[in-house]
Amino acid sequence: MRQFEVETGRRVQMLDITVEVQAAVKDSGVVSGVCHVFVPHTTAAVTINENADPSVVSDMDSFLSKLIPQDAGFRHVEGNSDGHIKSSLVGASETVFVENGHLVLGTWQGIYFCEFDGPRQRKVYVKVV
Amino acid sequence: MRQFEVETGRRVQMLDITVEVQAAVKDSGVVSGVCHVFVPHTTAAVTINENADPSVVSDMDSFLSKLIPQDAGFRHVEGNSDGHIKSSLVGASETVFVENGHLVLGTWQGIYFCEFDGPRQRKVYVKVV
Amino acid sequence: MRQFEVETGRRVQMLDITVEVQAAVKDSGVVSGVCHVFVPHTTAAVTINENADPSVVSDMDSFLSKLIPQDAGFRHVEGNSDGHIKSSLVGASETVFVENGHLVLGTWQGIYFCEFDGPRQRKVYVKVV
Repeated sequence: MRQFEVETGRRVQMLDITVEVQAAVKDSGVVSGVCHVFVPHTTAAVTINENADPSVVSDMDSFLSKLIPQDAGFRHVEGNSDGHIKSSLVGASETVFVENGHLVLGTWQGIYFCEFDGPRQRKVYVKVV
Repeated sequence: MRQFEVETGRRVQMLDITVEVQAAVKDSGVVSGVCHVFVPHTTAAVTINENADPSVVSDMDSFLSKLIPQDAGFRHVEGNSDGHIKSSLVGASETVFVENGHLVLGTWQGIYFCEFDGPRQRKVYVKVV
Repeated sequence: MRQFEVETGRRVQMLDITVEVQAAVKDSGVVSGVCHVFVPHTTAAVTINENADPSVVSDMDSFLSKLIPQDAGFRHVEGNSDGHIKSSLVGASETVFVENGHLVLGTWQGIYFCEFDGPRQRKVYVKVV
């Protein structure tokens, strides 16, 4: 299992971690297999989305925050229930195939770390099998 | 493949199944690998979220039920279309790493079975590779 | 890694691809293992849901389109931000177990390709390990 850290700068933020995940794949020496990415946090997630136009991820950030507002009468006193819900909807793990030592992603796909209760220092786990 | 049963007591409920999944990991004898959890139902799901404060999962239950109400003019006559939609959004499978024979979860993370059309007797499948 | 193509006929559509995925499993020769399905597109997804009553998937289509409308003041100029958001919520990958050379699905479960910005020619990747 490999891991790396990411530092988020805002409460809600999507960070492209494709380069870091690809580095973990290379480091594993696996030529053909499956790469699993796992986020060990309950107010963060990992997803795959477009990496060409940055307005795609900013549209997602702002729409999700409208759909699941921070103050929606939640009981959990830490004020981050919205982040927990987003985390479960987007998901803590993602699976990408590996061929010829490289992640097999579509033309426009990047792997994103989703921060839903930052800014914080966060961890990402990667395992290639 | 291992499996165990869970019995839900309400229409919508999140049950912590971390102990059962960890038992399946131990039973598999795998020391280092990947644990896949799969829910063979279309109105249930599996997710990873906070296991410390129970208000986190109750906030999620009640918010999702507000976001996706049971009676939103659906055509499916069984009255559980809300459960099918929640099932696809939260997801039928989850992947967690295994090291030293144990699930590698973050400090606050637990694995939850999500019931969206209970109460029922349900199954959970686990495979460790 | 195996792959096949699907052709979608509407902007938003869920296509049952269980037969195609099962064919890829058979083709792989794997008797007991794990089947990963991956969609290399950022306005599409893969999910598992009911295959008995077609109104279940049409309910999901129309509800998701109400929840995440195409014109919600997005900045991304291609007019498909709704599709990108749905893609991240439903997810680009799905994991199903394989036993005796067959996908282990619940009685009512089918694997669906989710089109969120069609009609288009799309690809699905399958890997069985």
